[in-house]
Amino acid sequence: MTTDTALSADDFVAALKAHDQRYWHAHPFHQRLHAGELDEEALRDWVANRWYYQKILPQKDAAIIANCPVGAVRRRWLDRIVYQDGRAEGEGGLAEWLALADAVGLTSEEVLTERRVVPGVRFAADAYVTFARTRPWTEAVAASLTELFSPDLMAERMSAIRQNYRWVRPEGLRYFEKRKDAARDDAESALDIVLANCTTRPLQDAAIAALSFKCDVLWSLLDSIEHSRTAA
Amino acid sequence: MTTDTALSADDFVAALKAHDQRYWHAHPFHQRLHAGELDEEALRDWVANRWYYQKILPQKDAAIIANCPVGAVRRRWLDRIVYQDGRAEGEGGLAEWLALADAVGLTSEEVLTERRVVPGVRFAADAYVTFARTRPWTEAVAASLTELFSPDLMAERMSAIRQNYRWVRPEGLRYFEKRKDAARDDAESALDIVLANCTTRPLQDAAIAALSFKCDVLWSLLDSIEHSRTAA
Repeated sequence: MTTDTALSADDFVAALKAHDQRYWHAHPFHQRLHAGELDEEALRDWVANRWYYQKILPQKDAAIIANCPVGAVRRRWLDRIVYQDGRAEGEGGLAEWLALADAVGLTSEEVLTERRVVPGVRFAADAYVTFARTRPWTEAVAASLTELFSPDLMAERMSAIRQNYRWVRPEGLRYFEKRKDAARDDAESALDIVLANCTTRPLQDAAIAALSFKCDVLWSLLDSIEHSRTAA
Repeated sequence: MTTDTALSADDFVAALKAHDQRYWHAHPFHQRLHAGELDEEALRDWVANRWYYQKILPQKDAAIIANCPVGAVRRRWLDRIVYQDGRAEGEGGLAEWLALADAVGLTSEEVLTERRVVPGVRFAADAYVTFARTRPWTEAVAASLTELFSPDLMAERMSAIRQNYRWVRPEGLRYFEKRKDAARDDAESALDIVLANCTTRPLQDAAIAALSFKCDVLWSLLDSIEHSRTAA
């Protein structure tokens, strides 16, 4: 399948963006979430399980920095850790996710002990960290490109939650509010890095495969939440 | 939960063996498999997906040896790698699993390209390898103790397949035939190692947690196969 000829930048970007078909936007669980079909406990399960994915993000990003010999890339990537961890306790994306948890009626004990987290969610999220630790840093950066497809999803989710789950306190939605623009910036930055550093066909193919892997991680995560609920 | 007092050997063994309740023997997919309720394609999916778990076993065992400073344990554990990989091409447990694949009508191309393997199966099996690579070797040995519960399952499976899936060529069942006794020996050996090396309460608790983790790996693996079929 791989030939020696590098793809043009346009073809490479098109091959990456074609993965929007496999983005978790289309997952049945997200569709039911947005359609207002989840009961309160199902929405809480989603927030509590998704916490496990949120909390690994700074470690995933640190693994990319740890593997990257290019100072300019490391400097840009550092912002992602600060974005999630904040500059002080109670700030940042993780704190905002915990605020969402509070807004849907989860105690922080329920979230932080992870007792609502199903094993398949752990395995999928951990696979992403292991990928970032063990694969070339360019592949781990490419795996982050699911954010190309995320801004629209964030906007849709906010209006869906406001409309269909009126019992959710609105201050819980700050994570999505801020993430909408941040995801756009992050995706553009990551795309620049991938285009500048994946200039041979094998590197381009590896980047495309990495994005495909990441789509599997996100999809499998929702599969596990959905399966645990239908099996319950 | 953890106190400083070590459990007696009997109590420790009882705490480990109590995990038979969570062993994948009881998983709905295995129950349907044994009851003869799978159609030919579902049985093939199970064999092709389970291959991914089988194939990581020698790497998992090598990771344990790589982390173990005790020569006597390393020497005993080495047999497990030989058991699966054989001493020559076409021998060993992995070759026997491929013979099972052949006996259920899978081409080796379908198995070895792993295109029937669902992502959640990969993530669960890979989590077991990562566990063996990154956790203390005593925990990884304890995780192998699901084999305590395996001999009965192997016997039941062989008679279930002979009775309910007469189209499966009987020479495909050699893996289970041999595994029945091998699992008993392996489990006894691993239990000796765990009892001899986990002599404080924190080490015992970590061993119990490792076996619990492994039960999650196996269960989640079947969840993923089952979910992919019901979602298909």
